Amino acid sequence: MADEKNEGVLARWGKGLKAKSSSLMAKVVELLRKTKKLAKDDPRRIVHSFKVGLAITLVSLFYYFEPLYDGLGASAMWAVLTVVVVFEFSVGATLGRGLNRVLATSLAASLGFGAHFLADLAGDKAQPVILSLSVFFFAAITTFIRFFPRIKARYDYGFLIFILTFCLVSVSGYRDDEILQVAYRRALTILLGTFIAILICLFICPVWAGDDLHSLVSNNIQLLANFLQGFGVQYSNESKEDELLEGCKSVLTSRQTEESLVNFARWEPRHGPFKFRHPWKQYRKIGSLTRQCAYRLESLNSYLITETQTPLHIRDRLMKSCSKMSIESSNALEDIASDLRTMTQPTFPNPHIEKSKAAMKDLKAALKIGPGDGDIDLLEIVPIATVASLLIDTISCIEKIAESVCELGSLANFKCVEAGKSSGLELEQEHQKLPTSAIVNDHCHVVMVD
Amino acid sequence: MADEKNEGVLARWGKGLKAKSSSLMAKVVELLRKTKKLAKDDPRRIVHSFKVGLAITLVSLFYYFEPLYDGLGASAMWAVLTVVVVFEFSVGATLGRGLNRVLATSLAASLGFGAHFLADLAGDKAQPVILSLSVFFFAAITTFIRFFPRIKARYDYGFLIFILTFCLVSVSGYRDDEILQVAYRRALTILLGTFIAILICLFICPVWAGDDLHSLVSNNIQLLANFLQGFGVQYSNESKEDELLEGCKSVLTSRQTEESLVNFARWEPRHGPFKFRHPWKQYRKIGSLTRQCAYRLESLNSYLITETQTPLHIRDRLMKSCSKMSIESSNALEDIASDLRTMTQPTFPNPHIEKSKAAMKDLKAALKIGPGDGDIDLLEIVPIATVASLLIDTISCIEKIAESVCELGSLANFKCVEAGKSSGLELEQEHQKLPTSAIVNDHCHVVMVD
Repeated sequence: MADEKNEGVLARWGKGLKAKSSSLMAKVVELLRKTKKLAKDDPRRIVHSFKVGLAITLVSLFYYFEPLYDGLGASAMWAVLTVVVVFEFSVGATLGRGLNRVLATSLAASLGFGAHFLADLAGDKAQPVILSLSVFFFAAITTFIRFFPRIKARYDYGFLIFILTFCLVSVSGYRDDEILQVAYRRALTILLGTFIAILICLFICPVWAGDDLHSLVSNNIQLLANFLQGFGVQYSNESKEDELLEGCKSVLTSRQTEESLVNFARWEPRHGPFKFRHPWKQYRKIGSLTRQCAYRLESLNSYLITETQTPLHIRDRLMKSCSKMSIESSNALEDIASDLRTMTQPTFPNPHIEKSKAAMKDLKAALKIGPGDGDIDLLEIVPIATVASLLIDTISCIEKIAESVCELGSLANFKCVEAGKSSGLELEQEHQKLPTSAIVNDHCHVVMVD
Repeated sequence: MADEKNEGVLARWGKGLKAKSSSLMAKVVELLRKTKKLAKDDPRRIVHSFKVGLAITLVSLFYYFEPLYDGLGASAMWAVLTVVVVFEFSVGATLGRGLNRVLATSLAASLGFGAHFLADLAGDKAQPVILSLSVFFFAAITTFIRFFPRIKARYDYGFLIFILTFCLVSVSGYRDDEILQVAYRRALTILLGTFIAILICLFICPVWAGDDLHSLVSNNIQLLANFLQGFGVQYSNESKEDELLEGCKSVLTSRQTEESLVNFARWEPRHGPFKFRHPWKQYRKIGSLTRQCAYRLESLNSYLITETQTPLHIRDRLMKSCSKMSIESSNALEDIASDLRTMTQPTFPNPHIEKSKAAMKDLKAALKIGPGDGDIDLLEIVPIATVASLLIDTISCIEKIAESVCELGSLANFKCVEAGKSSGLELEQEHQKLPTSAIVNDHCHVVMVD
């Protein structure tokens, strides 16, 4: 009896263990799948990881080789620290952090030294008071300055490093008589660390924030074009519909990434087709117009679902022009996206916009109903009529996008049609592959979880 | 002649100087105005700055007092460093950073020590190779792990510190024979720094991310209520209209802040009316439903402008029910916002939602037009008909918001109507003052500069 019970317990244990191990296996498989997806979505992530590994290993060698170690002393660890915190995914972000770090360190070190010098003059008793007060006020004021939106966007890290260095130098000063020598060594190692980080980031498969911004903005316009195309042909299949709507929604949530990328790109030197002072801020404008258009398209989608309520005779009359309008609008957006991608000055006015305007006139004529149409429930007409009015709105949105891309073209000297096509195509091939979601994940500081 | 010329040059110089100094003055005045606004929008910013100053000054005293200095050695600077990087605006963010730092440091230090020990066993020649390889692979793998969205959202800083400490310990090891003692001192200072940062953040005017999240989400619902109220009474004046629309737009851009706040709030201990495991994730759901509603209201606004085209006899018929619907919807939202703010379980179904549904039925009846209405241009009816259909949509949105707040209420054990009112009112008074924009600016990592 006891044996049977024991067996039962053992069997249950065995079962429980089996279940646990199989659920663990499932988790491991899931993790591997996710890892593979992460790497596949943007292979630059793997390259970046190896670059960081390389940079840190190189810096670690400072510790190893005797002569360097003797020269730099224990401050060599500042080089490791600098590389770890400065090395970012894109060149722009790394340059921004590196410059912030070097400038803030030098400025804070000189000020800290000055504070230390003044406190020394004041005598032994007053010294700690003066130093504590100066640390307190510098820290408080710098912390407050970090709340200014413009400062926060580009120099937040610099101000953080400023507080840190000022405290370390001014306070450590009254312990260490060799303050100048320590400061010199530390500055040298920080410069070296920054230099190695920037060098590796810049010369081994560099990731340019500017490139990503450029392809993010043009991808977004392309996503809207795809959506309108699908809308025009009335979605041949359901899964495609979801995909198109997803695309449209991802445009709506790309604002923060765009903003980060603009801030990073402004640090970057000339690269590829982009000059040093490329008008990156203009991308912000195009992006925000694109999102305005995306709002309208998202509303379009909700009317598509309820569309079947519309009386057939009215529906047929309007359907054709609506369909024409959305396909022409889609072509116009596709033109704009491809012009932007290949950095070609767009033709203005865009012929597809003109065509969709013509379709709009037909639509407006078709929207008049007379007594011959019989009893009408306005609520039943609303869906199709709203689709019409949203499409009309969309056209004016697209015109604005076209204008802002033209503006960018003249600011950045885009090539004219014939000359640009060939070199532009390379750019197109290079950037087409990366999905928007990958770019958003790579550069965003705060990441959404589901 | 030459004198005259000279005088002319001098006069011009004088003028130029005057113009420059007056433009400088204008800039200084502008800066002061901005500073004042920054401080006034959220006075907690000033308090925070002083708190940071205090924490850093306290830590700097480690350098000053002999006994402590002798005990901790040069590693005292790690305390300063820790306070500077760990001290964040809200308790949740500081706790998250502090825990990340302490845990990652301990784990990385042990692993680094292990790597150093293994390398020692391998002999003098193999040692640097083993150490370099382990640094390379640990750094690369950790960097890759940081790309996982879930990790990035909560543990990004921990992984950064992990790489840093692992490198410092494993590599510095083969220089320093007293590795264990150094590690012990450093860990102690880091713990002390974290402890001081958390203590000051927690006990001097603490800023709770949870509180801010709670008021951000309920403020957003209130903003929509205000908008609908204004819409219902047809905007008594223009400046008010802009203000209401601004409010609605700020709801649309609050997503990222909400996400950060949820991540921070999950680190926070029990405080005020919030228990330790308060269902913070539910706020994400309410927030996203609120934004869906805000999209619809924003579209409402664009129809308001073109509304005057509608033929009068139809307009009058619809206006009354539309107005009733939007006012009742507004009341419903106001109820929900105030219930959320005071943490009272909402009554379900909400009587205002029922009333607005009744108004919707009237509206649907009014939307039927017969041959008696004469020739109708559908495009002219579109605006008012769309307003009607958007309002109908809005009601279903509001129902969803009400449901999700109810869900939160049962998850977090909100008080029932009578019992909760009094203690809830205090909470309401405390949080009402802070504008959404201030909260967004305080907690957002990437800040928009327009």
